[in-house]
Amino acid sequence: MIPPDHPRYRSLVVRERLAEAAREGVVALEGLTAHGRAEAFDYLIGEKSTSTAREAARCAAALLRQARRPVLSVNGNTAALAAVECAALQQATGCGIEVNLFHRTDERMRKITRLLEDAGATVLQGVPERLIPLGHDRALCLPHGIGRADLILVPLEDGDRCEALRAMGRTVVTIDLNPLSRTARTATLTVVDELTRALPLITAAYADLNPEEAERLVLELDNHYLLQAAIVEIIRGLTSALD
Amino acid sequence: MIPPDHPRYRSLVVRERLAEAAREGVVALEGLTAHGRAEAFDYLIGEKSTSTAREAARCAAALLRQARRPVLSVNGNTAALAAVECAALQQATGCGIEVNLFHRTDERMRKITRLLEDAGATVLQGVPERLIPLGHDRALCLPHGIGRADLILVPLEDGDRCEALRAMGRTVVTIDLNPLSRTARTATLTVVDELTRALPLITAAYADLNPEEAERLVLELDNHYLLQAAIVEIIRGLTSALD
Repeated sequence: MIPPDHPRYRSLVVRERLAEAAREGVVALEGLTAHGRAEAFDYLIGEKSTSTAREAARCAAALLRQARRPVLSVNGNTAALAAVECAALQQATGCGIEVNLFHRTDERMRKITRLLEDAGATVLQGVPERLIPLGHDRALCLPHGIGRADLILVPLEDGDRCEALRAMGRTVVTIDLNPLSRTARTATLTVVDELTRALPLITAAYADLNPEEAERLVLELDNHYLLQAAIVEIIRGLTSALD
Repeated sequence: MIPPDHPRYRSLVVRERLAEAAREGVVALEGLTAHGRAEAFDYLIGEKSTSTAREAARCAAALLRQARRPVLSVNGNTAALAAVECAALQQATGCGIEVNLFHRTDERMRKITRLLEDAGATVLQGVPERLIPLGHDRALCLPHGIGRADLILVPLEDGDRCEALRAMGRTVVTIDLNPLSRTARTATLTVVDELTRALPLITAAYADLNPEEAERLVLELDNHYLLQAAIVEIIRGLTSALD
């Protein structure tokens, strides 16, 4: 057991939860490494939502408001970390939820779907088709889900699919703690924040936005600017560690 | 299979190797997350040994030259990533090698020992005793190994043991990609570099150092300065991503 007074308590508890999810087959082993990378970047932004992240979350909500067929794409890490937050976003916005996995097996699909449903989400079901030009199984999606979505919210995405979806003309919103990553740079909008903080920020902003503000945010959206601001926030944190 | 032209090829191959080692029980699931954190920091220093890391590696070699009973402490990640580099360091310096695990089981001890021996290392064996004041199994060590070592080289260390060993008056040299970590700040000397690059740098410097230079490096050793320089190198990399 991790002592609650350990300086890294929350981070260690989340890490154990993910290790447990890996033992159960929900999270892929490679997903644990991906989580470690995210942890490091979260550490660098001080493990809280920065003002840039809050601004990006409002933009994400505005894009969701304007989308006609938004779909939240969920992988193993997202389900293990934030099933409840995914369900709450769906409740607020009416977005579809589709499971999409790199390490795809029927068993993992079932387990992750179950986890989301237990948290109160409705998960899209059906026969997947290879609708995204990719060599791996993230190409597989539902014709009535990601296949026809105009906006795809992809937390913890890999760069390949983000690029492919953008090339297909889709709006891609990602949640990625690394502002330098290919995903972050390729997406229409990147929220540089930790998943369980970012999703509730988007959900809350969605309820709060009026149509005029939503329109203005979408018109003025500048992902490059937001990413640069996120990098500056990391630099500021590191600089404060110097004496 | 990962395509060799993937921009993150090397990093992905190493990640798969660790996932495989986890399936075999050499690497703990928590070790995969730890590796992800290291990956992120390596990414930030440009995935190459910085000039500060090279300087720190020379200092590590100098400390090893002056030590009478140096021991390299190896955990699952270290063995999976760098068994060959550990054996080469032992060959050059004559240091002891002892396996020390947080998630300790007889089976993991055996597998990791085997991995090191297959790479050409000689691994200390015997009945461990609880010689370090810690609540977990990293407290266990060999009386004729870490128990009486004057210098302990601990790659990929956790903060607890590093502090405990320092409090026992031991010289602790660590290899840690996060210059802000408790381990990095507590150790006698921290090499902020990736393991498979850092170990050969130390091995090469050991052969290269003359006694006068070794003495000077030890006298002038300033870990705080080295860590600050490592942070500045990360800031410089991030700043170059701004336009």
